[in-house]
Amino acid sequence: MSDPSTATHLDPTSTQDAVELLGLIAYTELASFTRLAADAASAPDPARQLRLVRLAGAALARQERILGRIAELGGDPDAAMLAFAGTFDDYEMRTEPASWWESVLKGYVGNGVADDFCRLAVDGLDAETRRIVTEVLDANQNAELSVAVLDEAATGDPVLASRLALWGRRLVGEALGLVQTLMGERPALGRLVATGATARADDVDGDQAWVFSQLTAEHTRRMGRLGLAA
Amino acid sequence: MSDPSTATHLDPTSTQDAVELLGLIAYTELASFTRLAADAASAPDPARQLRLVRLAGAALARQERILGRIAELGGDPDAAMLAFAGTFDDYEMRTEPASWWESVLKGYVGNGVADDFCRLAVDGLDAETRRIVTEVLDANQNAELSVAVLDEAATGDPVLASRLALWGRRLVGEALGLVQTLMGERPALGRLVATGATARADDVDGDQAWVFSQLTAEHTRRMGRLGLAA
Repeated sequence: MSDPSTATHLDPTSTQDAVELLGLIAYTELASFTRLAADAASAPDPARQLRLVRLAGAALARQERILGRIAELGGDPDAAMLAFAGTFDDYEMRTEPASWWESVLKGYVGNGVADDFCRLAVDGLDAETRRIVTEVLDANQNAELSVAVLDEAATGDPVLASRLALWGRRLVGEALGLVQTLMGERPALGRLVATGATARADDVDGDQAWVFSQLTAEHTRRMGRLGLAA
Repeated sequence: MSDPSTATHLDPTSTQDAVELLGLIAYTELASFTRLAADAASAPDPARQLRLVRLAGAALARQERILGRIAELGGDPDAAMLAFAGTFDDYEMRTEPASWWESVLKGYVGNGVADDFCRLAVDGLDAETRRIVTEVLDANQNAELSVAVLDEAATGDPVLASRLALWGRRLVGEALGLVQTLMGERPALGRLVATGATARADDVDGDQAWVFSQLTAEHTRRMGRLGLAA
């Protein structure tokens, strides 16, 4: 197997895998856009509305950046993204937020898990695609706003804080279930994770159990940033 | 009065008027963003969803361009825009669409009237602001998509076509009512329209009756593009 970190010539299989992961990332950004725009429309005040609108715009910009890379790899950008249409429907239905705060936390947890999963798969990509994806993931400022508004709200309201902690556990369970489904349906994702894991450490094979342990550990850290128990 | 088309030095009054109009335009783009994002979320298929999402992104880009000009004129961009927060609430409540098509037509008619009003006021602005606003208005591709989807739908369905024609009349009535309210509450807008009208033609004073006749004529043309009677 070629070392993906130095590959300049991509074999067709790994390119197809890359396009598949990029399609998923782009679709995730599209879903983020939709959620942020809806949260903006129901924000408690115009200033917060505007912040969320701008985050939605940034999600769209990230989507387009990813689609640009799909085009460079010879794929059909919109088709690769829309191949994932409906992927989150079941997750969405099972995690209908009961309040604006729950919706914000849902974005924080859901995007967090999605980003962490992408970071695990990214090491299986060619160097240039990895650079772009990492840049896109690093540019995501959603978490900062979520932490600010949720921390502020939860600090002053212990009842809200404990409800949100419970909601966070529900969300991460559903998100991990979604990852499991996706890895089952899309072997390319598992191949990228395994390639990346092997490239990083000899004694890690990047199987599903390892993926789950990584995602769970990151989720615990993430909830800690809100002062909430995972 | 200085000729606004050649003014390089702006007097403080006209700058304040310009900032007020720019705030309204930016807020209109923010409202477009919100509507387009909501239409995207309930679009009948992923391809149309994506087109609407991209139009929403373009509305946001136009908003930011206008806010940039407010900053250049020494105004507070977000404050100037959010000064109009709530302006459309009454209009929105009175024009709740009953279907996706009605929502698309609502955007087409509402944005059309808003853009036409801005084009009447734009001649009262300094040359650079006018250039930017005209560029922003010209860049708006929403109407093209609306015409495409509505024309396609109405051609094959005479019942839908006649319901949409009725809906269009209702919408323009409400939109003109909103213009009347705005011009009453914001004397700056009337001043800009009057300045612009006088600059264009000696025998036009740009009063409200003239504004309404202009907006109505444009609306009739616009409905004609859909093959619907105004």
